[in-house]
Amino acid sequence: MSDRVYIGIDIGGTNLKLALISEAGEVLSKTARPSSSDGGPEGLRRGLAEAVSSVAGGKVVSDIGIGCAGVLSADRRSVQASPNLPEIEGLPLCDSLESEFGVETLLENDANAIALGEFWRGAGAGTRTLVVITLGTGVGTGFILDGVLWRGGRGLGAEGGHTTIDPEGPRCHCGNRGCLEAFVGAYAILGRLEDRLSAGRGSALKAGVEHTVEEISEAARRGDETALAVLAETGRRLGVGLANFANLFNPDRIVVTGGVSRAGRAILGPAEEEMKRRAFRAVTEGLEVAPGQLGDDAGPLGAVYPLIERAGGRR
Amino acid sequence: MSDRVYIGIDIGGTNLKLALISEAGEVLSKTARPSSSDGGPEGLRRGLAEAVSSVAGGKVVSDIGIGCAGVLSADRRSVQASPNLPEIEGLPLCDSLESEFGVETLLENDANAIALGEFWRGAGAGTRTLVVITLGTGVGTGFILDGVLWRGGRGLGAEGGHTTIDPEGPRCHCGNRGCLEAFVGAYAILGRLEDRLSAGRGSALKAGVEHTVEEISEAARRGDETALAVLAETGRRLGVGLANFANLFNPDRIVVTGGVSRAGRAILGPAEEEMKRRAFRAVTEGLEVAPGQLGDDAGPLGAVYPLIERAGGRR
Repeated sequence: MSDRVYIGIDIGGTNLKLALISEAGEVLSKTARPSSSDGGPEGLRRGLAEAVSSVAGGKVVSDIGIGCAGVLSADRRSVQASPNLPEIEGLPLCDSLESEFGVETLLENDANAIALGEFWRGAGAGTRTLVVITLGTGVGTGFILDGVLWRGGRGLGAEGGHTTIDPEGPRCHCGNRGCLEAFVGAYAILGRLEDRLSAGRGSALKAGVEHTVEEISEAARRGDETALAVLAETGRRLGVGLANFANLFNPDRIVVTGGVSRAGRAILGPAEEEMKRRAFRAVTEGLEVAPGQLGDDAGPLGAVYPLIERAGGRR
Repeated sequence: MSDRVYIGIDIGGTNLKLALISEAGEVLSKTARPSSSDGGPEGLRRGLAEAVSSVAGGKVVSDIGIGCAGVLSADRRSVQASPNLPEIEGLPLCDSLESEFGVETLLENDANAIALGEFWRGAGAGTRTLVVITLGTGVGTGFILDGVLWRGGRGLGAEGGHTTIDPEGPRCHCGNRGCLEAFVGAYAILGRLEDRLSAGRGSALKAGVEHTVEEISEAARRGDETALAVLAETGRRLGVGLANFANLFNPDRIVVTGGVSRAGRAILGPAEEEMKRRAFRAVTEGLEVAPGQLGDDAGPLGAVYPLIERAGGRR
């Protein structure tokens, strides 16, 4: 008999999202607030502590798990580099929450946390080997190999978004050319739309206006042909990456999550087709490419999963 | 006190190579003979048994490990498909040797066996996470992740040679376009040479003649500029694949083995440069690209390594 509860936190460049999570992986309550404040690192630390108290709602919390964008320190107790939230760099995140709340705090890379969340309670449930790709401004990947999250041999991560799929491809934010991210990250999708609109393709979306991938997905749902073509081309590029991960990891399933994945089959259909065209047939036989199921809950859930697993909780 | 001895076997399309191996990983004796005979599957089985007796030389052998090209059966007791040695397909390899010699027999994919060999006793010794790329007619990869060989989630392998590095690249033997193998497999290297020779580039090698990668390596050692250019271009293509493996696996070292790797820095220098240009700096910092050290002994050594490890032998 146990009714331990945990707090899962997703620290993004824009928002802190917190969830109170049961041992069985139910989200009992949640809250969100802006990550940044005028108070610099101390303001961020205080905001985080207030949000933890608020989501706990007086309950005794067992432990805290955090998923955070950026490069973690070697001991995974703080964030070394975070272009979108510089005030977090070097902040003793785990130490600070541990001393304030007297509970253990684990820190994980955000793409890994999302992958663990989908593996535990989402579209990857029931698998042993799972590839999770998170499409956002950047492209994050999480690889769960025979039940264990792969963090890279020297702990620097498993950066599938930064594998070259075309050596002469467009410049990626990382400096390389032709990374998967440079083809399927939000900036690549928006660039693809702008190219088509300024070439005079008919669309409800307008050239020269700043759009979002959500708007493209929405237009595609209404049957907008230019939006559909942009998503299909994005899907085909994504499929090259999926084929590579399929041949390397021979996974039980591939899950695609993040904003643009909400466009569903308009992007996942072409991605799956391209993957099957390229990877070994034995590898893709029965290999499903599924959309994530947890949305914004994936990060907080995945961040607490290692704590629950270690405490003897069951999948 | 133990002086167990093991037999390691490398079954290739052309030759069977056998080695008698001590628990410490010394090659005590070896033998080789053609793989094929006129006798079909039964001839192959008999030839293998004779070679085992011959290399054992009367010693009591503990166990047998085999590395074999081709797709293994799900239970890894036989070879399901082997384009270069069809008579081995479906032959109950492990059962047959076990009943004939009364010892346990393990079967492994050849690229994996080579990777384990270099990890144990060769250029990968002392690492925990190692990427090994074997350049031959095909391009095999072996990934040792935190000390454990990665065989793919559903056991179909980890086929890094069949990851796309250029979506519009040349056709690969697997049917896909632009696989790493289609750029750095022997047939790709020879094609690159022929293109340059027939374009009139000066060389000691002659256009329209069937060359080998060994001849190209040899010419490069003598300073032949066309041979050097062919190897440099091959190295740059290889470097794209290395960058991808570096960002995905964050390894301690990368080892390149197989025939053409004997060209040394002429190919590994440009490969390392291209890798560093593309992968994250933190990942490539101190990451060495080293040639294999064991040559033909890597396969037999790696094939027995899991037996020795299980028996409690030490690295």
